[in-house]
Amino acid sequence: MNSGQPTITFLIFFLSLATTTLSSSDQLIRLPTDHLFCESWKYSIEANDAAVWYVVPERCVTFVKEYMNGDRYRTDSEVVADYTLEYAKTVNVSGDGKDVWVFDIDETLLSNLPYYVNHGYGSEVFDEKAFDEWVDSAEAPALPASFRLYTELQQLGFKIFLLTGRSEFQRECTDRNLQYAGFTNYEKLFLRGDSDLGKLATLYKSEKRQELIDEGYRIRGSSGDQWSDLFGFATADRSFKLPNPLYYIP
Amino acid sequence: MNSGQPTITFLIFFLSLATTTLSSSDQLIRLPTDHLFCESWKYSIEANDAAVWYVVPERCVTFVKEYMNGDRYRTDSEVVADYTLEYAKTVNVSGDGKDVWVFDIDETLLSNLPYYVNHGYGSEVFDEKAFDEWVDSAEAPALPASFRLYTELQQLGFKIFLLTGRSEFQRECTDRNLQYAGFTNYEKLFLRGDSDLGKLATLYKSEKRQELIDEGYRIRGSSGDQWSDLFGFATADRSFKLPNPLYYIP
Repeated sequence: MNSGQPTITFLIFFLSLATTTLSSSDQLIRLPTDHLFCESWKYSIEANDAAVWYVVPERCVTFVKEYMNGDRYRTDSEVVADYTLEYAKTVNVSGDGKDVWVFDIDETLLSNLPYYVNHGYGSEVFDEKAFDEWVDSAEAPALPASFRLYTELQQLGFKIFLLTGRSEFQRECTDRNLQYAGFTNYEKLFLRGDSDLGKLATLYKSEKRQELIDEGYRIRGSSGDQWSDLFGFATADRSFKLPNPLYYIP
Repeated sequence: MNSGQPTITFLIFFLSLATTTLSSSDQLIRLPTDHLFCESWKYSIEANDAAVWYVVPERCVTFVKEYMNGDRYRTDSEVVADYTLEYAKTVNVSGDGKDVWVFDIDETLLSNLPYYVNHGYGSEVFDEKAFDEWVDSAEAPALPASFRLYTELQQLGFKIFLLTGRSEFQRECTDRNLQYAGFTNYEKLFLRGDSDLGKLATLYKSEKRQELIDEGYRIRGSSGDQWSDLFGFATADRSFKLPNPLYYIP
């Protein structure tokens, strides 16, 4: 059984295999179809109601596949980028070079969809070795909405810092992939060093943001697909959550 | 003359009318349909990307109407309740009566949908007088998923505290509405007193939660439809965001 799915709904699903069923007291209960359930599952993970989850529920694999390959993912990302820019334009960027924007990388700037197409759209347990090989290939495409955002933020005068859960040994391929996808002229790329390994992403990323603040930077905004990119301490003035129904990082 | 226009072009034009438009530079760009845009708008407000927003965009009124009256709102709420209970059952509720759950009221326990049906589904500027009259009627129905959650949390041994942005002068009608809707046996109902008026909801609610903590209570969980129910200080161990595309409270 899938640990990422609420027990009640899951059990009832197996009892029914349809959208309606008769309870023991013969009272008609409507149960959600897969599509309806998966819309709600997506709502719950994006609003952080589910908190830790491990794999996409089996009944939602098709939903996630259609979401990621269809117009929804693209449009969700574009609308988030629009709200982000709407805010960014209100920031009084000073000339001292201390106004910064922090971006996560995976599913924020770069899309690993080509990897997940071949790995069950998040329904399989994370395969670190296979994913590292994919990272090493440096072939992840840019997310179009984020590319537009990245470019416009630079034009507005923000300095760009990249803060990723990837490890230091992946610096070269990560940088190569970023250049390939068009993400150039960033100020600094933070990767997990030896002392960061095993830390929860929320802590690791908070510590790195704190370093920026200690150096006199003002973190005006941050963008990430995980709540662990946006919560914790030393948070940005405004944080923007990009959609990601493929995986969860605590 | 009909034949003067190539049929295929004509057909493509009409097929694409909903999703494409010509920019001033005659470059063909895809624009999202209302439905697609409104799905993304909903994503953005629920993930707090939009932050402060005032009214439902005109093009999304039908979307919100269908969402609120259809299966989506109900199913979203049920799945959130499932995740909430899944967590609540992991809490070791001690026998000292200090394990508490904090609920917001409007769009959390009680539904004001009957009011919004007559007030443009959130597309109109908030009418305090009309809404106060509705509150005074004490006719708001229970949200079914929250009623189930409320009941089961009590059975699990949590003490229930209600923390609402409604004002002290609405105590009697609020309590009457809660009883009418079946929300009985709560420990205490917090409403805005004179000193709370004008405070942002995030601050007011944080202060009240702090009072609970100062009295030795452990806030194991909280449920609300607004991020201002869940953010701030003295936050619960876990917070659960219910859907609400009707309005935003900072």
